[in-house]
Amino acid sequence: MQAAGMRCRMDAAGNLIGRWEDEHQPAEAVLIIGSHLDTVPDGGRYDGMLGVLLGVALVEAISRTEAKYPFAIEIVGFSEEEGVRYAAPYIGSKAMAGRFDRELLDRVDDQGITLADALRAFGGSPQSIDSAAVDPARVVAYLEAHLEQGPVLQDEGLPLAAVSAIAGQTRLEVRLAGGGGHAGTTPMNLRRDALTAAAEWILQVEDFARESIGMVATVGVVEVSPNVSNVIPGEVRLRLDLRHADDADRSRAVAELCRMGLELGARRHVSFEPRTLHVQDAALMDTAMTRMLQESVADAGVRPLTLISGAGHDAAVMAGHCPSGMLFVRCRDGVSHHPNESVECADVVLALTAMWHFVRRLALRTGARADVTGR
Amino acid sequence: MQAAGMRCRMDAAGNLIGRWEDEHQPAEAVLIIGSHLDTVPDGGRYDGMLGVLLGVALVEAISRTEAKYPFAIEIVGFSEEEGVRYAAPYIGSKAMAGRFDRELLDRVDDQGITLADALRAFGGSPQSIDSAAVDPARVVAYLEAHLEQGPVLQDEGLPLAAVSAIAGQTRLEVRLAGGGGHAGTTPMNLRRDALTAAAEWILQVEDFARESIGMVATVGVVEVSPNVSNVIPGEVRLRLDLRHADDADRSRAVAELCRMGLELGARRHVSFEPRTLHVQDAALMDTAMTRMLQESVADAGVRPLTLISGAGHDAAVMAGHCPSGMLFVRCRDGVSHHPNESVECADVVLALTAMWHFVRRLALRTGARADVTGR
Repeated sequence: MQAAGMRCRMDAAGNLIGRWEDEHQPAEAVLIIGSHLDTVPDGGRYDGMLGVLLGVALVEAISRTEAKYPFAIEIVGFSEEEGVRYAAPYIGSKAMAGRFDRELLDRVDDQGITLADALRAFGGSPQSIDSAAVDPARVVAYLEAHLEQGPVLQDEGLPLAAVSAIAGQTRLEVRLAGGGGHAGTTPMNLRRDALTAAAEWILQVEDFARESIGMVATVGVVEVSPNVSNVIPGEVRLRLDLRHADDADRSRAVAELCRMGLELGARRHVSFEPRTLHVQDAALMDTAMTRMLQESVADAGVRPLTLISGAGHDAAVMAGHCPSGMLFVRCRDGVSHHPNESVECADVVLALTAMWHFVRRLALRTGARADVTGR
Repeated sequence: MQAAGMRCRMDAAGNLIGRWEDEHQPAEAVLIIGSHLDTVPDGGRYDGMLGVLLGVALVEAISRTEAKYPFAIEIVGFSEEEGVRYAAPYIGSKAMAGRFDRELLDRVDDQGITLADALRAFGGSPQSIDSAAVDPARVVAYLEAHLEQGPVLQDEGLPLAAVSAIAGQTRLEVRLAGGGGHAGTTPMNLRRDALTAAAEWILQVEDFARESIGMVATVGVVEVSPNVSNVIPGEVRLRLDLRHADDADRSRAVAELCRMGLELGARRHVSFEPRTLHVQDAALMDTAMTRMLQESVADAGVRPLTLISGAGHDAAVMAGHCPSGMLFVRCRDGVSHHPNESVECADVVLALTAMWHFVRRLALRTGARADVTGR
């Protein structure tokens, strides 16, 4: 960041911030470009870091031109997005968005270290964490570039896409309880097999999501009891993860799937007991920012596809605080959270180009003082 | 056994044998009535032992009458049927049927103790285990009473049934391998979900068995990988247990189910890899013995239902050695291999009555010398 001409600081939440502005024309307004510095254990190189480095590279490129901008640019490396250590995601962006929950400071990690102590040891300042919040009145926009972490761009043959929303999510745990019994001695018509009931519901979930545009639904966890080859499964526990950009559609889907589960359970004399583990509403990106990103993607010579993000990002938090836009970069085979995570250099160049066009369009839109035609 | 007037001995395989015969008319021919003395860990009181005690009670009753029989009666408590300690079932009955595999003697248990040493410590004689074999020429019949270990008799409202066959069994392990991926970012149409493929097959197995008379098929084991709520299951391993009294029907069913699995796998781009773990052919009870048991059940005032046993029994081994018949006694809720295993006293009395009629009919059929009308 310093080599790219930025002044650097760390805020109270451990976020790394590099600020660039025209030294002759200091600006009150700021464009924040960011993503996160942390990663999951045994993850890849690009999840988070790609967006931070794209911001740094963008400033480096812009600082070599004569263009004038009516805002400063701050590149932010958020301190903690994945939520691995304290089972709490978005610590950095929540602090910056003024939405940090101070009760988290007392939460301990596996070693019994509180978040407050960990933050202090890192150089942050838990007691003044509120100071990390930025004033939304002075933020022109938040922009985040991130690898897609999914296979759609590769499947479409496109390097980039604007993100219009980050899907909301419901996680359910479902317990199905039937009757056990000997696999050899219990005739088919006297069975109350919890696994065949679960299988029927798993297929209903798949069918339902396939027929619902923009929905993804996954049963990822299945625990069979007793899980022995010659005993009819008496109990199955499974977990459903259902996501959609429209919160009402998501709620209706969950209710309908539970209704179907209860119905098949009644027919099979197997109880169907759903329990909500987690609900997160969708986060919409700013419409104007998304339109500008689409135009910027087209400026870079790429067909401007718009995607819904099924995964969470700092942009979901920042979108509640200031006008936010998000750019996806194609990743190989949709693989993320794995050492095989991979992006093409040419795609990164296109992302940088689109981001540069975005900054130019934002400047044109924002200020009369802008002169962004210079080189 | 001694109290009931029998002479007792233990054979080289650890089987307990009590012999009763008319001391004035020693017989060469023998009727063997037996079941096993061992049980599974944390099992119930009746599995095996019920059949042994019914035999003892029968001899006790018969010995108080003046009836003469053209055969001796030997009550056998087989030493090892469940196969828990050495993962080898039917040790006692295989020795008596001359089918004991001597290589088993070197097999070790969890503590490293060989079967030979365990048998020796119990008072058996591994080196002369062949001496436990009985000469089939002198065995008039083998009769085994056993609790049903299933719910059919309770469902039919009947206390007893003759068993015409012990079903054959095929155990398969199936690996389904698809593609993993993030549950939020992989659209439904780009998925290769191994769990939804497995669910489809589990329902096909259920449908197939429901439509096949006398077949039971159970997927009892499911292992999902990675089994995490936000990751699409990339791999599923499951186990199928399929049983039928007709070996050809069973083979055809397994082949057809594998064909269906391969077909749905191809459609879903998920591999379907079945592996045979275990095949055991069906054991037919002797037709004449089964008919006589049906008549004896009717003699006891019970509608003579005939069942296929889905579970294995010593009778399956003995049926290959001498004319064998088997009688099922109703158990509560089909529960077995569990402390809740339960039979009604009145049902046991009816079983004893039917067995007494069986012995009488067998005597009438066997020997001109018989005089079984006396009291």
